[in-house]
Amino acid sequence: MRVVVALGGNAILKRGDRGTVNEQIAAIHEACAGIARIATEGHELVVTHGNGPQVGRLMLQDEAMPDRVPRFSLDLHVAETQGQLGYLIQQELTVALARAGLPRSVATVVTQVVVDGNDPGFEHPSKPVGPFLSAKGAAEYRLRGIPVAEAAGGGWRRVVASPEPLEIVEADAVRALLSDGIVPIAAGGGGVPVIRDGEELRGVAAVVDKDLAAAVLTATVAADVLLMLTDVDHVVRGFGADDEQLLDKLTVRDARAGVVSGEFARGSMGEKVLAGARAVEAGARAVIASLEHATEALAGTAGTEIVAG
Amino acid sequence: MRVVVALGGNAILKRGDRGTVNEQIAAIHEACAGIARIATEGHELVVTHGNGPQVGRLMLQDEAMPDRVPRFSLDLHVAETQGQLGYLIQQELTVALARAGLPRSVATVVTQVVVDGNDPGFEHPSKPVGPFLSAKGAAEYRLRGIPVAEAAGGGWRRVVASPEPLEIVEADAVRALLSDGIVPIAAGGGGVPVIRDGEELRGVAAVVDKDLAAAVLTATVAADVLLMLTDVDHVVRGFGADDEQLLDKLTVRDARAGVVSGEFARGSMGEKVLAGARAVEAGARAVIASLEHATEALAGTAGTEIVAG
Repeated sequence: MRVVVALGGNAILKRGDRGTVNEQIAAIHEACAGIARIATEGHELVVTHGNGPQVGRLMLQDEAMPDRVPRFSLDLHVAETQGQLGYLIQQELTVALARAGLPRSVATVVTQVVVDGNDPGFEHPSKPVGPFLSAKGAAEYRLRGIPVAEAAGGGWRRVVASPEPLEIVEADAVRALLSDGIVPIAAGGGGVPVIRDGEELRGVAAVVDKDLAAAVLTATVAADVLLMLTDVDHVVRGFGADDEQLLDKLTVRDARAGVVSGEFARGSMGEKVLAGARAVEAGARAVIASLEHATEALAGTAGTEIVAG
Repeated sequence: MRVVVALGGNAILKRGDRGTVNEQIAAIHEACAGIARIATEGHELVVTHGNGPQVGRLMLQDEAMPDRVPRFSLDLHVAETQGQLGYLIQQELTVALARAGLPRSVATVVTQVVVDGNDPGFEHPSKPVGPFLSAKGAAEYRLRGIPVAEAAGGGWRRVVASPEPLEIVEADAVRALLSDGIVPIAAGGGGVPVIRDGEELRGVAAVVDKDLAAAVLTATVAADVLLMLTDVDHVVRGFGADDEQLLDKLTVRDARAGVVSGEFARGSMGEKVLAGARAVEAGARAVIASLEHATEALAGTAGTEIVAG
């Protein structure tokens, strides 16, 4: 099977870590061991990943010294995180695959993702990026006209526009690597968001959700499975209530309804179940699971599978 | 012919520019128009580029706020610049090729370059990065233990280790793109420097010279020509003297001798003539020329060609 593996933020940097190079390498090392176990089952891999803390770091640095270095636009920062994280993942994954007895080349393709300039996401910034803020820190940002929102895990975070991904620009390159037996890392951080302007592409200030981009990637490479790895084992219905339910399966219809009702919050589980629904509609399987249970999730015995219906 | 085009710093950011996104895009736009003219001659392209100002910017930002965000190591910064510049170049080059009537996919491969951990470059930092410094600024850096050196163009700049490039790690990926008719952008900023540590690769704090890396890339993809584009039309012998000579040809022997004697200074023209010598020894042609005369340089009627002998 061809499997698109989408690594959540936690697979790249543990919650609570400050974001040092060594912390990133340690998290990625562990994630790559998990990915290598999938490969040993005989599956062909495509890897994608989030970039929330990393892109937030670059935004923070830009803001801190606008007089000494020119500020970059957000599209450039996303591209920078693709370079940084792609480099670390390809370095670690190559070794993990070799140790698993499956030596393969791994390479990152810098990837643009086309979005619609009229996407409502540009009016309503919703994607959390960067470090968690105190109420006071959040208030300061607000005063400077920078949007913030309460974070799913408590506290506040900056939010940026998160338009819908429509198309992977570097689809040919990803397919070229796959057809040569190379493991591509692509659409990192949801891809660099660009809009079409005649025959040109133009970067925009946004961060595309990496799971939604992974669903587009799944269709683009005609993958059999979209495997979204995160820090929980299952999608939960009625989270925190007495009758909360760990779901083994979730239908496309219930996934979409849960996103509309807010049961699966945007900026958290909402995009994952939506990405799963889209992947299933495009003819793939889609599973949300923890890194630890990745191989079981592929076998259908762990995680939450989004199913037709 | 298969041509490796190495874009100098000036093709990515004009001398004197502050480094805004728009300045970078304008310079890259012009460079890509030049590259597209090469493609219209029927040549197959591989693109590589420098990253001096861009990597310097990231180092400067890291230094400015060590308490708020963890400092990254230099290998990560190089990888970040590959993402950033690769993104901008692939975006502009795609359009330039389409306008030239040669629609092609263009994709950046995040590229590691193996160096030797015992390279003398680690003892003697020599590669200038980042903005030009005043004598006072340079003295401040010295006091903090950060190496600086007088720059070729006047003023001072930070210098970092610049070990010899030995091998392109992602050679398979670059070849896979080429064999599918895709234009690869690879080894940007000289590649992310890594050393071999058993079966692992490990990033090191250095910046590999992009022309020397381009020579390795030339051999790796068995290119017919290494074309180094810079802001001068010719290599000059006896620069500034009454009898200074614009060279049409330079033998491998004279190139190497000029590097040893200091006639072709390291950190400036030295690496270019050395890269040219190595490319010629590997069986390719090598030409140093200005962006404006790139096609004439390929035809042998402009620039300085390094020749056997």
